[in-house]
Order: sequence, then structure tokens, then C-alpha cells
Amino acid sequence: MELLDADFVTTDPAILETYRYDQAGFCTAGTPLALARPRETAEVARVLRFAHENRIPVVPQGARTGLSGGANAVDGAILLSLERMDRILEVDLDNHTATVQPGVINSVLSRAVAEHGLFYPPDPGSWEMSTIGGNVATNAGGLCCVKYGVTSDFVRELEVVLADGRVLRTGRRTAKGVAGYDLVRLMVGSEGTLGVVTEVTVALRPSAEKPLTALAFFAASRDACTTVSEFLGTGRRPSILEFMDRPTVEAVSAYRDLGFPPGVEAVLVVQSDRGAAAADDLEAFAKVARSCGATEVLVASDPAEGELLIEARRLVGIALEKLGDRLIDDVCVPRSRLAEFVDGVAAIAAEYGVDIPCCGHAGDGNMHPNVVFDGSDPDSVLRGQSAFDAIMALGLRLGGTITGEHGVGMLKRAWLETELGEVGLSVHRAVKRALDPLGILNPGKVVRLPGVD
Amino acid sequence: MELLDADFVTTDPAILETYRYDQAGFCTAGTPLALARPRETAEVARVLRFAHENRIPVVPQGARTGLSGGANAVDGAILLSLERMDRILEVDLDNHTATVQPGVINSVLSRAVAEHGLFYPPDPGSWEMSTIGGNVATNAGGLCCVKYGVTSDFVRELEVVLADGRVLRTGRRTAKGVAGYDLVRLMVGSEGTLGVVTEVTVALRPSAEKPLTALAFFAASRDACTTVSEFLGTGRRPSILEFMDRPTVEAVSAYRDLGFPPGVEAVLVVQSDRGAAAADDLEAFAKVARSCGATEVLVASDPAEGELLIEARRLVGIALEKLGDRLIDDVCVPRSRLAEFVDGVAAIAAEYGVDIPCCGHAGDGNMHPNVVFDGSDPDSVLRGQSAFDAIMALGLRLGGTITGEHGVGMLKRAWLETELGEVGLSVHRAVKRALDPLGILNPGKVVRLPGVD
Ligand SMILES: Cc1cc2nc3c(=O)[nH]c(=O)nc-3n(C[C@H](O)[C@H](O)[C@H](O)COP(=O)(O)OP(=O)(O)OC[C@H]3O[C@@H](n4cnc5c(N)ncnc54)[C@H](O)[C@@H]3O)c2cc1C
Ligand SMILES: Cc1cc2nc3c(=O)[nH]c(=O)nc-3n(C[C@H](O)[C@H](O)[C@H](O)COP(=O)(O)OP(=O)(O)OC[C@H]3O[C@@H](n4cnc5c(N)ncnc54)[C@H](O)[C@@H]3O)c2cc1C
Repeated sequence: MELLDADFVTTDPAILETYRYDQAGFCTAGTPLALARPRETAEVARVLRFAHENRIPVVPQGARTGLSGGANAVDGAILLSLERMDRILEVDLDNHTATVQPGVINSVLSRAVAEHGLFYPPDPGSWEMSTIGGNVATNAGGLCCVKYGVTSDFVRELEVVLADGRVLRTGRRTAKGVAGYDLVRLMVGSEGTLGVVTEVTVALRPSAEKPLTALAFFAASRDACTTVSEFLGTGRRPSILEFMDRPTVEAVSAYRDLGFPPGVEAVLVVQSDRGAAAADDLEAFAKVARSCGATEVLVASDPAEGELLIEARRLVGIALEKLGDRLIDDVCVPRSRLAEFVDGVAAIAAEYGVDIPCCGHAGDGNMHPNVVFDGSDPDSVLRGQSAFDAIMALGLRLGGTITGEHGVGMLKRAWLETELGEVGLSVHRAVKRALDPLGILNPGKVVRLPGVD
Repeated sequence: MELLDADFVTTDPAILETYRYDQAGFCTAGTPLALARPRETAEVARVLRFAHENRIPVVPQGARTGLSGGANAVDGAILLSLERMDRILEVDLDNHTATVQPGVINSVLSRAVAEHGLFYPPDPGSWEMSTIGGNVATNAGGLCCVKYGVTSDFVRELEVVLADGRVLRTGRRTAKGVAGYDLVRLMVGSEGTLGVVTEVTVALRPSAEKPLTALAFFAASRDACTTVSEFLGTGRRPSILEFMDRPTVEAVSAYRDLGFPPGVEAVLVVQSDRGAAAADDLEAFAKVARSCGATEVLVASDPAEGELLIEARRLVGIALEKLGDRLIDDVCVPRSRLAEFVDGVAAIAAEYGVDIPCCGHAGDGNMHPNVVFDGSDPDSVLRGQSAFDAIMALGLRLGGTITGEHGVGMLKRAWLETELGEVGLSVHRAVKRALDPLGILNPGKVVRLPGVD
């Protein structure tokens, strides 16, 4: 097969092996046929044309930091890694946009534009590793979404290689535009199932001011959740508003002693980057928190002290990693239901006999319960999986969604069908069929096409 | 035909006649078969099922304030007016959302939520007349988009009746969510060609502070455009940033003498609603404007005085109406190209011998050149149409789009094909076919399906 001889393609099994998985738990991966690492759009198009003619599955890959198995290999597939397409093509200082290839790492873009006094807000926890293409394909969120929005709010124009190898340009560089259907938004979050993103133009903002930070401690997680609702109800827009429950705080404290007071059931971390008005925002936050029963509120007096306070949130990932195998959930609920959700997760932990430290982007109602289990113990695995399912059922019952930011991939495909319902699922399939009639793009992820994959 | 006997359907030609047109110039309308004015989703579904079975075109209609012929009748079609579905179903004070039927008028919703200290930002000039369903279907913008975004930025969940009468619920009420494809964004702006919107949940914000206003006068429109770029470059977020050229100012002054200084070539109107920081924003604006050559800057000392200043912008619509027949364009360009665009429009006016007062949402690069012509003079009509075409060609040449907010409808369908290009057009058709295989939904608008309409 002619494509397999191309200099950007390898079939070396040892190399293929290292590209089979993303970071999701509980997801299987097939045995791929080859790995393509194109350097330009024409090479991507060549892969797709070949795959289309030969009905070979293609799995697009960014940095494989995904948490839902979306980038996992499929049997007989070409893994299409965009990592070598890593050039920043343009930073437009007049119009505040940047145009990049999909393999550019989020932090590389963020730092490059910061040099010009500009700011690319979407900041997934994986920002030092994940690619803009992956962020677009998953519609990644992050800490500062609560104020600035998610990836889709910043994507203006895309170049996409379609399933048959044709190259689509869609969207526009202008601030507004309604010419035709919003194919940009259709592609964003489609997890490599509708096309391969080969160029992205994002909107930038002028740099924000350095944030000020506050921490509030609560003796009941319900009080923390009420604080979230009431504080946002005042109309203030914090740039970060994060929640940590007791098991999360304990894990962080075990990893590094931050001198937290004893008896803490929940912590909120809040930042404001409104410059001169930031202190006022935090003052307002402290007032709301105290009136909701906070046992203590610490307000940093300057950005440097704030860095110490936010450290607790930053350490969550690494601290939880020490606990064992984890299945990280990302259910999102209306913020008025946060307290019920947090209580419900604690009840699920008790019911299934697993630890589920729960933290997350409370300002958006987007929580990360981390189901901890022992992968070497089949019973523990089973209980972990059951707890994970129970959490999604809880999220849906509270009017929420099964995934606020990590995507469906393989992990949540069955649950997606429940969330969408019959009509929703059938429209999803119709759209998938319209763009990928042979079902070669990332088959088995997000939605299955009956009779095709 | 059984549907035609339903109590919400009429075939009275006199009534039908009054529902044939929206507000667009240069657009034809066919002779409809019937007018359906359902009061509930089940009735909408009944219309669509009937239309689907009998292959009858359906034209969804809101308040018919559209400016692109999108709601115009098609021969033999059922006009499906949503005006009677005009109930506000819920205002959720905890989660800051509102759920409405599609026929609710924008201003009715805005005022209803304002009573609760909440704010629905999308504010098209037609807000006292147009419906939320129409706003959703066109992805309407308005004056305060420059700060708050357009309709699509506020739509969370939709109920949509599909071409075959099935009822789709899509999206979610949570602040974030990535479960499946973004069908909400696909429906928003699809101008009634992919489905009929029967329920909308929008996000609200806490009420903004009363704005402060400033006006800046310029002896050259180029200086006004530079001011726009430089002011936004400082990172300030005005809640309004509007431009008027000399012909616009003259029309307004002819309608009502606002005591503007003589020799004005361009005016910028700016507002900030940042409360205590608003005065500082306007100070910064005044400084930038002066450094860019403004001949005079007026800063209102309180909101009431500001109301007087913004009056000039408010009168533009009615003042231009007095000039004769008009074709209102809404090309959007990257803001760095604004000056070229404004100069280009003046050159087109000279070339075709027509007046083209030009105003618009300068902060977004979204301009409204108003081509004035005499509808009773075929030569004037022809020159008007040619000028209109030349403006769209200019917009595309400057990296812009043919429509920033009014949509494609019938008026810009040919130009849409140019903007999308061959691949883009074919993907549009594939999506249309996936959702409306018989092509009964608003045929002849936005995209044609070859062989079907
Ligand atoms: C420590 C850690 C923290 C994280 N924090 C967050 C967080 O805060 N918020 C959040 O949203 N996510 C988070 N994630 C999840 C993950 O980082 C994001 O989903 C990220 O956007 C994936 O980017 P990637 O480049 O690694 O893509 P991959 O994992 O390689 O791919 C993700 C999906 O996108 C598809 N894809 C990738 N590139 C393309 C392309 N160019 N064209 C088409 N499809 C493509 C793949 O097929 C796959 O379905 C975190 C992950 C880790 C490990
Ligand atoms: C004075 C004036 C000022 C204006 N200012 C602005 C402005 O600032 N910004 C702006 O964006 N527009 C503006 N417009 C244009 C117009 O008001 C908007 O496009 C508005 O959103 C149309 O709403 P409507 O209810 O009148 O819809 P209609 O004109 O009845 O319909 C518009 C389109 O939407 C479809 N549609 C309507 N309802 C539904 C539904 N429920 N489901 C599916 N499809 C539907 C129709 O088929 C049609 O294609 C202005 C118009 C006027 C007359």
C-alpha cells in the first residue's frame, strides 16, 4: 500500500505501541495498522484519501492526554498524530487572533501571545501537554472558563480535512458572522469523528491583570455550595471558583502540608483578575462565604501570596494520583443542584465502598469526582465502575450532563445514548453519516453508526 | 386535507397576504397555501408531519422583521407563524436561565427578567418587535454584542420540531457540556431550514449597571476607525461602540437637530456599563480618540445625559427610512480593515451614483451600509443592486463575511456560495440533506438542494 511507504508513516510495532492509549481509565485499545505523523495539511489529506478509498479507520491524535479514550487505537486503524504540525502561523496583533497548526501545545500558544500582551483563556489542567487541535476536538474547558468561557467560545476559523480527504475551510476571522450553518461549532467537540482539524484561528483577549486569591473553609460542603450560588448571584465574575471536598483536601494535605485548619469539610478557592476591583470582589466573596457559614476565609494581600493559596488547587491532580487507580468524572449540573450532587457522590462512595474525592469547577457546576480503585483487584474495579455509573445517573437526575469537558470518547458512549434520547441519537447519527458516510473517522467513539461500525 | 381544517390554520387569502413578506428589500415572495398559527409544540409537529407526508414546503415565521427575505412566502407553502406561542415558561433565578416559547418578543423577555435583576443581553435594533425564535433562527446580534456576544452565546437548550415532525430536545441547562455534537449551535442561525424552534432556554446575566456615554467627532472617518482599534487594543470592553459616517449624521441631523458641530466626517458613540469604572473607561476612550485626531469628545456626566448622546444612534433607523427605499447591508470585516471598508463603501457610492450612509457596530467590525435607491426608477434600482453586490465583494476581499447578523435568507444566497466555496457548500448541503431530506423546510433560503428545491 503506497501510503505506508510515505516518510511520515511508520508501522514499527514498538512505536505503534506507545501511541495506543490516551489517559483514560477503563478503556480498551485495538491494534493499529500504522502511525502517520504528517507535517502539513496535504499529507493529512493524503492519509484520509487513502483511508477512504480502502475503508480503513483513522484515529486522530493530539497529545493523548484525553480522559475518555477518544484517542485510543482501533483495530486496523491508521493512528493520525498531529503532533508534528506544531507551528504558530500568525499572531494578528490588530485583530487579536492567532492562527496555529493543531499540534501546537496550549501553553506554547499561551506564552507566545502573552509576550504581546495577549491572552488565550482556555486553560485545561493539561495545558502544558495538550494540543490546540485536541482542545478543539474535545471543546476543552479549564479553571478560568467560569469567567471567560470554553474553547468553542474562542474558535473563529478552522481548516478541516474531511473523511474523504477534501479540505474544508469554515468559519471566519471576524468577530461576528452568520453566513451559513455554524460548522465550526459542529466540529468543535466532535472528538475526531467528523473531520481532522489541521488549522485553527482563535480569538485572543488583552492580558488580564494578575489575579488576587481567597480561600474559604467550611464545616459542611452544603455551605460551600450555597456560597457559590449566592456569590455568583451578586453578579461578580470571578476568574476562578473551585471546590474541594474533605477527601480531596486530605489527599492534598497528605502530599504536602499546607497548614489547613482541622475539621474542614469543604474549601472554595476564588480568584478575581479585575485589577483595582479585585480586592473588592474578594471582599464581597468573603462576606458571602461568612454569611453562608464559612469557618475561616483567607484573602491574599497580593498576587504572590495568592500563588500560595492557589497551590492547594494545583496539587490536587498529583495528590490524587498517589491514591491509586482513578476514574475521573466530569459531570456538570445546574449550579443550584451542586450541594445535592456533592452529597450524592458521598453517598455513592459509601454505598459502593470506594473513595471518591470530589473537586471541580464549582462556578460552572462542573465537578470532578475521582473514583479511586485498585486495578489489580477485580472486585474493586467492579465497585469503581458501578460507582462511576451511579455518578452519571445522579448527574442526569439533577438536570445535568454526563460530561462537562472531557468528552464522550469510548468511556461514556453508552451513557451518551441515555442523555441524548432516541431522537437526539438519531440526529447525531444523521449528521455523522452526512460527514463520514463510511464511518472511518474514529469509529466506535461518541456515536456508533449501526451497520457501519 | 385534514390539517387545513384545524382551528389554528387559515387559508383566507386576505390574511395570507399580510404574512407574505418580511422587511427585506429586493426579495420576492410566493403565494402560500395556508397559514398555521399553532399554540403548542404538538400542533407544530402536526403541521410538519402533514407537510412531510405531502411534500409541502413550510416557512417558519417569527415577527417577520427579518432583513434577508428568510421568512418570505414560497409558492404553495404553509406559513408557520410561531407568534401565538408567546409564553415565558420559566425564569430560573438560581441558575440564571429563562425558558420561553419562540413567539416571545425580545423586549418582553428582557423586561420580564429585568424585574428580577437579570439581563438578557442580545439586543437587536428590532428588539421591540422581533421574537426570540426569530433571534435564535438568525443568531441575531445587536448593539451590546461587542461586550456580551450574540444570541448563540446565550442559547443553552432548544426544543426543535424536525422536518418529519419528530420533536428534538438538544443542549442542556448547565453552564458547560460536551456530550455529543453541538446541535444547538447548528440550529442557531439556520434560518428555519433545519428545524422549527419551539422552545428556547437562554442564559441570563445579573443586570448591568446603567451605562455612561461618550461621543467623539472626527474630521476623517479613518481617524474614527483607528480609534476603534486602538481603544479595543487597550483591553477595555465598552458595552457599545458604534460608528456613523457623514451621510448618516446628515440624515439624523435632518430628522432632528442634535446640535452636532459642522464638518463632521464620522462619529463614534461609546458606552461603558462598568459602574464605578465606567468613567475611567470613557476617560481612556477620550484620550485615545483625541490622540487619533478627534475634533471633539463629549463625555456625559451621568446616565441621563448619556441618554441624550445615544439618541443620535437610536434615530439612525428612522432617519434613514426618510431617505427613500433602502437595502441594508451588514458586512462584517476584521476590525483592522474597518477604515478600508468605510472608504471602499464611499467609493462604491460614488461609482454607482447612489447614497450609502454607513453606520454600524464598529467594535465588532460589523457595518450597516444602507444603499438608498428609488424603487420606482428601474435604473436607480439597478444601480442600488450593483452597489449592494459591490459592497459584499469588498467585504470578502477584506477578509470579511457577507453577513454579520442579518442572515442569508434569499437576499444573499448567491453570495453565500461565493463565501463558502465548493467544499463548504457541499458540506452545507450534506447537513441540510441529513436533517431535511425532502427539502421542505424553508426551501430556496440559505442553501438550495440541487434536484430538490
Ligand atoms: C492532568 C490532566 C488534566 C486535564 N485537565 C483538563 C481540564 O481541565 N479540562 C479539560 O477539558 N480537559 C482536561 N483534560 C483532558 C484532556 O487534556 C483534554 O481533553 C485535551 O483537550 C486533549 O488534548 P490532546 O491534544 O491530548 O488530545 P487527544 O487526547 O490526543 O485527543 C482527544 C480527542 O480529540 C481528537 N483529536 C485530537 N486532535 C485532533 C485533531 N487535530 N483533529 C480532530 N480530532 C482530534 C482525538 O481523536 C480524541 O477523540 C486533562 C487531562 C489530564 C491528563
Ligand atoms: C428596525 C430593524 C432593526 C433590526 N436590527 C437588527 C439588529 O440590530 N441585529 C440583528 O441581528 N438583526 C436586526 N434586524 C433583523 C431582524 O429583526 C432579526 O433578524 C430578527 O432576529 C428576526 O426575528 P423575527 O422574529 O422577526 O423573525 P422572522 O423575520 O419572522 O424570521 C427570520 C428567519 O428565522 C426563521 N424563523 C423565525 N422563527 C423561527 C422559529 N421559531 N423556528 C425556526 N425558524 C424560525 C424564518 O424562517 C426566517 O428565516 C432588524 C430588523 C429591523 C426591521
